[in-house]
Amino acid sequence: MPFHQYFNREIFPIDAAIFKTNDLGLLRGYGLFDYFRTYNGVPFRFEDYWKRFENSARLLKLAIPLSRDETEKVLADLFALSGEPEVAFRFVLTGGYAPDSVHVIQPNLLIRTESLPQDNPAGRLKGIKVLPHAYVRDLPEIKSTNYVHMILMADEMRSQEAADLLFHKDGEISELTRSNVFIFKGNTLITPGRSILNGITRRVVLELAGPHFEIQVRSVSLNEFLAADEAFTTSSTKWVMPIVAVGDNRIGDGRAGKNTLFLQGLFEGLVSDWGK
Amino acid sequence: MPFHQYFNREIFPIDAAIFKTNDLGLLRGYGLFDYFRTYNGVPFRFEDYWKRFENSARLLKLAIPLSRDETEKVLADLFALSGEPEVAFRFVLTGGYAPDSVHVIQPNLLIRTESLPQDNPAGRLKGIKVLPHAYVRDLPEIKSTNYVHMILMADEMRSQEAADLLFHKDGEISELTRSNVFIFKGNTLITPGRSILNGITRRVVLELAGPHFEIQVRSVSLNEFLAADEAFTTSSTKWVMPIVAVGDNRIGDGRAGKNTLFLQGLFEGLVSDWGK
Repeated sequence: MPFHQYFNREIFPIDAAIFKTNDLGLLRGYGLFDYFRTYNGVPFRFEDYWKRFENSARLLKLAIPLSRDETEKVLADLFALSGEPEVAFRFVLTGGYAPDSVHVIQPNLLIRTESLPQDNPAGRLKGIKVLPHAYVRDLPEIKSTNYVHMILMADEMRSQEAADLLFHKDGEISELTRSNVFIFKGNTLITPGRSILNGITRRVVLELAGPHFEIQVRSVSLNEFLAADEAFTTSSTKWVMPIVAVGDNRIGDGRAGKNTLFLQGLFEGLVSDWGK
Repeated sequence: MPFHQYFNREIFPIDAAIFKTNDLGLLRGYGLFDYFRTYNGVPFRFEDYWKRFENSARLLKLAIPLSRDETEKVLADLFALSGEPEVAFRFVLTGGYAPDSVHVIQPNLLIRTESLPQDNPAGRLKGIKVLPHAYVRDLPEIKSTNYVHMILMADEMRSQEAADLLFHKDGEISELTRSNVFIFKGNTLITPGRSILNGITRRVVLELAGPHFEIQVRSVSLNEFLAADEAFTTSSTKWVMPIVAVGDNRIGDGRAGKNTLFLQGLFEGLVSDWGK
């Protein structure tokens, strides 16, 4: 598994110690990231991920030191070095080394090659339980590196056999810690449109659902979520994952919903043919 | 300037690249820090800083891999290596290297030796301007590494010739980005008691003020702050720094207040004799 990583125009083995300790990402949490994977060896929807990454960088006022084309070449090199059939890429852009630990001078760009996370095929059929958690991400449009609540709650999730947190604030739900959420009320597909990360899988699912369902992008209350017929979450690693319980509350009949599984099938069809 | 840093039981030159890139501090913002300095070569109020560091670590569920006594020895070694008359120490404790980028296995502890930040002796006499900023820190009791708002606003502060941000939320003020705030109404000293970092300089100032002023620790509205006779901020680098303007609003007559300068004198007396 000779995974490598790109850092500021050089390629290093994945376990190399690279970062000096006055990096603003490390000292001040001033960083953003993105994450996507290949299907059939081809980065999935790279154009979308790149645009999101550019948008996050613009909002944090960080200049990306590589062009899109240079980045694609780096991805091809890292993929070839890995020798794997599929990989995931993690981009991390930080405020860089700051002598005064406040002002950005030159951002640091890291691109890690990672093995695919263990899929959860049983979860995709059975569905997952999530815990309600009163919180809304600060600057939600930015894919920042702030995941303190998720890690702080990791033990609690484990002990309650929950897979994730459902963020809600002032009665309105937004997203899970790293993925978007949808509900079905009958054949109407509903998903929040604000205080969320602009998920690429979310966008793909909305495209796939368009011809089959009525779609509403609008605010969703926690109560409406709990009373939904079906619920699911989307991300590049979860695909279309049914949510069957929120804490002690079952969603629908507590099993993966049929509309959800239909969308899951469409998504799996799309990615299995990606790049072919 | 042979500054060094301690990392997981070894000492490295300060510019060494140390961190592997799967550290939860870097990837997930899961880290905390602390910062203090020496006077006359002796760490100022180390006992207090250590207790705060322990408290932050407990709240983030991170085990500190060094005891207090071992840490004091490390500080003495780093100080001796520096060859400087005074230094600052920055502690950073992160969630460590996580193969799944979620679960903490073994925290990483870094202790950096740094040169003292440039003091602002003119600012201590003239006072500073701050900008109001609608925000309250998430998990404010924890000295976490999340300073995104501060860095994001750095250019705006510069262009408005402001030195810092005054956080307020729902009409109530809490603190500056890295320091506590106080106001005087006549001879009554008032400081917020919640949604703030437990500042050591704040505590010292309350001790020093006790014999001289009536003290109220309670919530303070933004309007009350703007109408104060005097205002100031405290931190280990700012000491007792007058605040003379909030945006376009002058505080008092727009000059450092006499009670503020009196407390500043008491603080300077304390630190000039520290360790002697």
